[in-house]
Amino acid sequence: MEVKEALFMNRGEGENSYAQNSSFTQKVASMTMPVLENAVETLFSKDFHLLQALNVVDLGCATSPNTFTVISTIKRMMEKKCRELNCQTLELQVYLNDLPGNDFNTLFKGLLSKVVVGNKCEEVSCYVMGVPGSFHGRLFPRNSLRLVHSCYSAHWLSQAPKGLTSREGLALNRRKIYISKTSPLVVREAYLSQFHEDFTMFLNARSQEVVPNGCMVLILPGRQSSNPSSMESCFTWELLAIAIGELVSQGLIDEDKLDTFNVPSYFPSLEEVKDIVERDGSFTIDHMVGFELDTPQMQENDKWVRVEKLAKAVRAFTEPIISNQFGHEIMDKLYDKFTYIVVSDLEGKIPKTTSIVLVLSKIIG
Amino acid sequence: MEVKEALFMNRGEGENSYAQNSSFTQKVASMTMPVLENAVETLFSKDFHLLQALNVVDLGCATSPNTFTVISTIKRMMEKKCRELNCQTLELQVYLNDLPGNDFNTLFKGLLSKVVVGNKCEEVSCYVMGVPGSFHGRLFPRNSLRLVHSCYSAHWLSQAPKGLTSREGLALNRRKIYISKTSPLVVREAYLSQFHEDFTMFLNARSQEVVPNGCMVLILPGRQSSNPSSMESCFTWELLAIAIGELVSQGLIDEDKLDTFNVPSYFPSLEEVKDIVERDGSFTIDHMVGFELDTPQMQENDKWVRVEKLAKAVRAFTEPIISNQFGHEIMDKLYDKFTYIVVSDLEGKIPKTTSIVLVLSKIIG
Repeated sequence: MEVKEALFMNRGEGENSYAQNSSFTQKVASMTMPVLENAVETLFSKDFHLLQALNVVDLGCATSPNTFTVISTIKRMMEKKCRELNCQTLELQVYLNDLPGNDFNTLFKGLLSKVVVGNKCEEVSCYVMGVPGSFHGRLFPRNSLRLVHSCYSAHWLSQAPKGLTSREGLALNRRKIYISKTSPLVVREAYLSQFHEDFTMFLNARSQEVVPNGCMVLILPGRQSSNPSSMESCFTWELLAIAIGELVSQGLIDEDKLDTFNVPSYFPSLEEVKDIVERDGSFTIDHMVGFELDTPQMQENDKWVRVEKLAKAVRAFTEPIISNQFGHEIMDKLYDKFTYIVVSDLEGKIPKTTSIVLVLSKIIG
Repeated sequence: MEVKEALFMNRGEGENSYAQNSSFTQKVASMTMPVLENAVETLFSKDFHLLQALNVVDLGCATSPNTFTVISTIKRMMEKKCRELNCQTLELQVYLNDLPGNDFNTLFKGLLSKVVVGNKCEEVSCYVMGVPGSFHGRLFPRNSLRLVHSCYSAHWLSQAPKGLTSREGLALNRRKIYISKTSPLVVREAYLSQFHEDFTMFLNARSQEVVPNGCMVLILPGRQSSNPSSMESCFTWELLAIAIGELVSQGLIDEDKLDTFNVPSYFPSLEEVKDIVERDGSFTIDHMVGFELDTPQMQENDKWVRVEKLAKAVRAFTEPIISNQFGHEIMDKLYDKFTYIVVSDLEGKIPKTTSIVLVLSKIIG
């Protein structure tokens, strides 16, 4: 499986689409908005009067309304600064990036109905472009970005961790699709190693694209615990693996397909992220914090309603990569099974999710 | 009808898609390739050693392989220059623009299979982005483009010409959808006036976006004749109007729908284009020429095969806007009727099409 081709959020604007089922990342984005506002303030305080245009990218933007909130926030901050500094029209160039499989048609359609694009007699003229490609490699010319934003994207890996089959060709993470309590140590090591490699490539590419003093605001799902198999970070994949396992027992999915599949995603700890940034050495850490958040579905009192909504949200971001491995025809059954397990085994209790917020500045020289 | 929403080339990669039916514009693009090569040469001869990256846009790129040929041509020229000047890696940033209704998903899919994107150890690293929006307005920050390319796009109007109903509310271009021999003078005037307004907006927007000394290579369909109702420029719309008229006679289309519809497209003469550029005054004309070309279908000996292929090509670029007015359900019948008329009335003779090639330089200061 080529991750570049199989990894995207559910397309379109229908019932199962990511566009309709991304309330959690929207909640995260609104919680972290002050951090983004502060980053724009800081850019202005440095040398913004020198600029013709502020070039910003949202990496892994998907098709969620989230990315429009990000654009609006930056634009609003620029308008405020524009008034404070009594300057002429400023220009904002926003790049929206995701893998080529992302539904850019839906993204652009939503964009033009929600964001004022062009120079429509406003203080800040806003120009938006879509950039298809992997953020693990270069996407932009040298020194062409001043601000990088990414929310719930940088945890996706460029490939499933390597080395998860034995010399004899046996799967080492049987019956699981991510790190689990029962996974052997080699699985944890392989995941951390792949994340280390990928996040280093991410930082390396950005270090060439971001101007000195430029800023990155990265928000990624992670964990407070040093244990990578804690429920806080494994919940979704653990429960999906159990659901897939039951379909294997029913003869609906080939066991081998489950045993050989490992999700290209990793929820790091704060220390792991800090370690990689420091080893890379191109950026300084201005701010780093982890915070816990309930999923929005927890507001529902009825456990069935709650978990059905959760299953829709999970489906919106997991279905393309899961169906690529296990087949489209089994998806309805799989997410029904997922719902049933969360309700019956966990009584509808959904653990909090930890987010890591990271503000980095590009080192000069 | 909002032209911005209804105007796009047939989506996807299927039988009727523009991606599969754009051999004519591909022929035009390959004929005009030397002009584009020369434009890149000239840019280098001016001040390219100062640049970090060459920023290029292809306006109205649609989903045709055409736009990949354009990128490859520019890249190849840069590689040549890179060797001649013995310089380090150069960077090419290509923007692909079209209206938001364009199928960017198909465009990006084709792109990544045909163009080497990113910095893959080549002499020229190439970064490609999609820009949804109308080229009649601003799309980019000030001074952010060095080279503008547009092939068979700038003839599309931002709206149908105004003033084509009488004070009493009667349609003035009855039974026609474009300028025709039987159209009253007011129709010709309205079309020229709308093209004048739109092409002036086009030049005005570009004059802000293109750096001084920057270059535009524009190729648009036009006419050698001073008469705007000559078959050379009216063929497609005239024949479609006759076909629609027959479906009206059969009671399959409401007459009023035909009478009130005018296509937002204009095939200008060389003099008209020259006049608008000179009045605008932001660009000098470095090169301007018109040339005639047979459609690729003329190679077919059998007139039915020839015209059926022509009808497919015509359908690929006219169907979305035509079906928006007359309904999707009638489209198969309409293009069959079109085929029948061209074969029976014209014996399958397809007139040559005139293309206008225009190379403009942005005036300094």
